[in-house]
Amino acid sequence: MSILVVGSVAFDSIKTPFGQVDRTLGGSAVHFSLAASILSRVNLVGVVGSDFGHDQITFLQKRGINVDALAKVENGKTFFWEGFYEYDMNTAHTVKTELNVFQNFDPVIPEAMKNSEYVFLANIDPDIQLKLIQQVKSPKLIVCDTMNYWIETKRDRLIDVLKRVNVALLNDGEARQLFKTPNLLKAAKQVLALGVKTVIIKKGEHGALMFGHDSVFSAPAFPMEDIIDPTGAGDSFAGGFLSFIDKQKKVNDRILRQAVVYATVIASFNVQNFGTKGLENVVYGDIKARYNKLSQISEFKNL
Amino acid sequence: MSILVVGSVAFDSIKTPFGQVDRTLGGSAVHFSLAASILSRVNLVGVVGSDFGHDQITFLQKRGINVDALAKVENGKTFFWEGFYEYDMNTAHTVKTELNVFQNFDPVIPEAMKNSEYVFLANIDPDIQLKLIQQVKSPKLIVCDTMNYWIETKRDRLIDVLKRVNVALLNDGEARQLFKTPNLLKAAKQVLALGVKTVIIKKGEHGALMFGHDSVFSAPAFPMEDIIDPTGAGDSFAGGFLSFIDKQKKVNDRILRQAVVYATVIASFNVQNFGTKGLENVVYGDIKARYNKLSQISEFKNL
Repeated sequence: MSILVVGSVAFDSIKTPFGQVDRTLGGSAVHFSLAASILSRVNLVGVVGSDFGHDQITFLQKRGINVDALAKVENGKTFFWEGFYEYDMNTAHTVKTELNVFQNFDPVIPEAMKNSEYVFLANIDPDIQLKLIQQVKSPKLIVCDTMNYWIETKRDRLIDVLKRVNVALLNDGEARQLFKTPNLLKAAKQVLALGVKTVIIKKGEHGALMFGHDSVFSAPAFPMEDIIDPTGAGDSFAGGFLSFIDKQKKVNDRILRQAVVYATVIASFNVQNFGTKGLENVVYGDIKARYNKLSQISEFKNL
Repeated sequence: MSILVVGSVAFDSIKTPFGQVDRTLGGSAVHFSLAASILSRVNLVGVVGSDFGHDQITFLQKRGINVDALAKVENGKTFFWEGFYEYDMNTAHTVKTELNVFQNFDPVIPEAMKNSEYVFLANIDPDIQLKLIQQVKSPKLIVCDTMNYWIETKRDRLIDVLKRVNVALLNDGEARQLFKTPNLLKAAKQVLALGVKTVIIKKGEHGALMFGHDSVFSAPAFPMEDIIDPTGAGDSFAGGFLSFIDKQKKVNDRILRQAVVYATVIASFNVQNFGTKGLENVVYGDIKARYNKLSQISEFKNL
């Protein structure tokens, strides 16, 4: 009944066709934690600078997120990202990335958190992901994320990570890039061949695919007219996914499928407002309504 | 219990990363008819030149396709298309288009075919589509297709067509282009606002979406590792869709959803070989197996 996430905590300045925000709370570990906190207790391992204030800490704690392992570097500055999206919303265009205290992030998992059952290794250096895998004690499930940058610069180490996790989360572009194929089924099979039990390929507006060694699941996207800010969609998807499984206390094909649909719904709330705002006031009833709508949307009778 | 299709009959020379074929039987009306012929009787209205031989006619007739209204222009040449696909297979690159006898195609529906219950207006000039709509007598369902060329050159006339049909078939690129929006839900709503009852947006490897005035259906794609030749996928989808409905003898939301899944399966067979070869030896048992696999692939339990 506990989840561990290791990833970035950041301030984001984001501009989309629908508006802009400056220095709003963000980062992969934050988006993940907020999403997961609806169902679960989350232990957040990360690093911030002295510009990370009491308000931000309180905001996370109020969601039941344990920030005991959120290190604060005095005289350092928190990771900052500035970017924008154009109308198609599929690509984040980076204006500025200031790694700041994140540059030397070498996380140590506190003893009390090493027994976390579910672990999310957010998009960070594969070398750090490998170190983290060595630190956790018999987790039930390790899920990892990555990005094009690591595929391009540390592909071998990323492959080593994939050999040691249970669930690989990739978006469609990353999956194609990782194994140099336009075909997602082929890419998924190559990831499975590394020993991963489950591969989930997120396709944004086209939903998600989940591949096991003898199963395929296709989840519809939640139909939305306006995506206000896609930042953090993948991390909130991961938070929804892992917290749903944590809540069920076991893993099987049925629960994995439900977890992907639950994750899809959580991500749909995330993108309907800037930064963390989309998920701030969501309650379980809202989630359940969208989940059941997705069930209705994808339903058809057998021949 | 009869379907009418009006569209192109062609010879295609196609090159893909998996091989190539020269002057193989093709065209929208051919791909549609072959797909529909598994369940239905099809009346084909089209035009060919004197290079269209007895073999091609026999091939169509053996599938139960009525070619009485396939006009033959002596001393004319059949529509010819040459094109290729690169690895992503999403875009057809045209090398050569010779309209030939299709240039002056001004189809007249024979009296005996004017009572066809289900009508498919394949991708042809919207002015011709409008003339055809005036010729048919109280059809149960008119389905129309189009392409980017008509959106760019005859958008107003295409809108007039859409106001007069029951089902609009578009691919995702066309839907976005038609109403200048990246959002498919917004585009679909605009098509529905014209009076169309059902909008189907084909998304290739991402499946299909169907929108009614108060319903949305998301159909998964059939997972395939190798797409050999995507030519005719949209037309065989249409043929599968309309023949399935014809077979049920009525239309409701449940049947429309099943028809979209059936259409998806038919298109999946079409693309696994060049030209018409993919569908030539398919029997109903093959279709049913893939249909039921799609049901299994998209299934998840309610919360």
